[in-house]
Amino acid sequence: MQDLLRIHIEKIVPLSDEEFAVVSSYFTPKKYKKHQFLIQEGEAVAYNYFVLKGLLKLVYTDDTDKSHIVGFAMEDWWESDFRAFYTQSKATMSLECVEDTEVLCLTLEDYRKLCNAIPKMERFFLEKAYFGFIAAQQRIISTMTSSTKERYTQLLEQHPALVQRVPKSLLAAYLGVSRETLSRLSP
Amino acid sequence: MQDLLRIHIEKIVPLSDEEFAVVSSYFTPKKYKKHQFLIQEGEAVAYNYFVLKGLLKLVYTDDTDKSHIVGFAMEDWWESDFRAFYTQSKATMSLECVEDTEVLCLTLEDYRKLCNAIPKMERFFLEKAYFGFIAAQQRIISTMTSSTKERYTQLLEQHPALVQRVPKSLLAAYLGVSRETLSRLSP
Repeated sequence: MQDLLRIHIEKIVPLSDEEFAVVSSYFTPKKYKKHQFLIQEGEAVAYNYFVLKGLLKLVYTDDTDKSHIVGFAMEDWWESDFRAFYTQSKATMSLECVEDTEVLCLTLEDYRKLCNAIPKMERFFLEKAYFGFIAAQQRIISTMTSSTKERYTQLLEQHPALVQRVPKSLLAAYLGVSRETLSRLSP
Repeated sequence: MQDLLRIHIEKIVPLSDEEFAVVSSYFTPKKYKKHQFLIQEGEAVAYNYFVLKGLLKLVYTDDTDKSHIVGFAMEDWWESDFRAFYTQSKATMSLECVEDTEVLCLTLEDYRKLCNAIPKMERFFLEKAYFGFIAAQQRIISTMTSSTKERYTQLLEQHPALVQRVPKSLLAAYLGVSRETLSRLSP
């Protein structure tokens, strides 16, 4: 199962068997059931998660108790409340299983040790961070300039497997529209 | 003037005089007048820019020719059309001077050479990329959950110097409201 991590990393930096053994030693596997929380708002965020199997939703709850879906994560994706993780502050979001999920967990301390032990892993994380930033900026632009129908079409083009798999009510919460509005947009 | 770059980098990684001389050798200084373009939509993006002096706006123009301000950059900030820069594709945004501006320019090739020459610079760029990503994610959440007045107040709290300095018409375009609506929100 950890092979998925190796394939994922080697898309950016090649690793010898010895190097991957070192990388792998910093991660702890965990399993969660559907509806379980990996991160709860208001609590400490111990890990950055690499998803081996399953589906997660990252949720922000506003002052009026309304839930907004900030993002999803499935196989081969990283997810956390990154601000809370990197600044070691309390979570402002929750991370919850939409399906039974298996993850590899990395603490901030082990992340730093890993980068010291295998410096080229810093290049890997740098590239992931850049493309995370670019995707977030594209989403900001899309929110500023596109209709809900256009944003739905973009999501379908970029992540067809995700759209297939995520319950329609959650897709609606991600796009910021009602379930009924989304039904009218679906092809 | 390049001292600003050294102070900026040393907030994250310390540099010896020799190391900073190497870092500095990869940057080219350039000066632009108000209204000049550093990046034009549809053209190649040669540089990532570190702002020494002045004020820039990053603009996305939609299919109906409406301009949306994606971000601003002033002293001590980095700016580019990052997607176009890192993927060496054509710009989908423009970067234009709001004031006379002085920048240090870094090509993608020199960025890679710099990271190879001084590997700890990778840590510096990694931290900038993380916090860029976190800021973009916070902005997505803010757009999902906050009123224009709340977003204006947040901007004022986070970047008071920027709000003072940016013409009100541009602030309105950044917040996605009319100049009149913004006037009603200003304290």
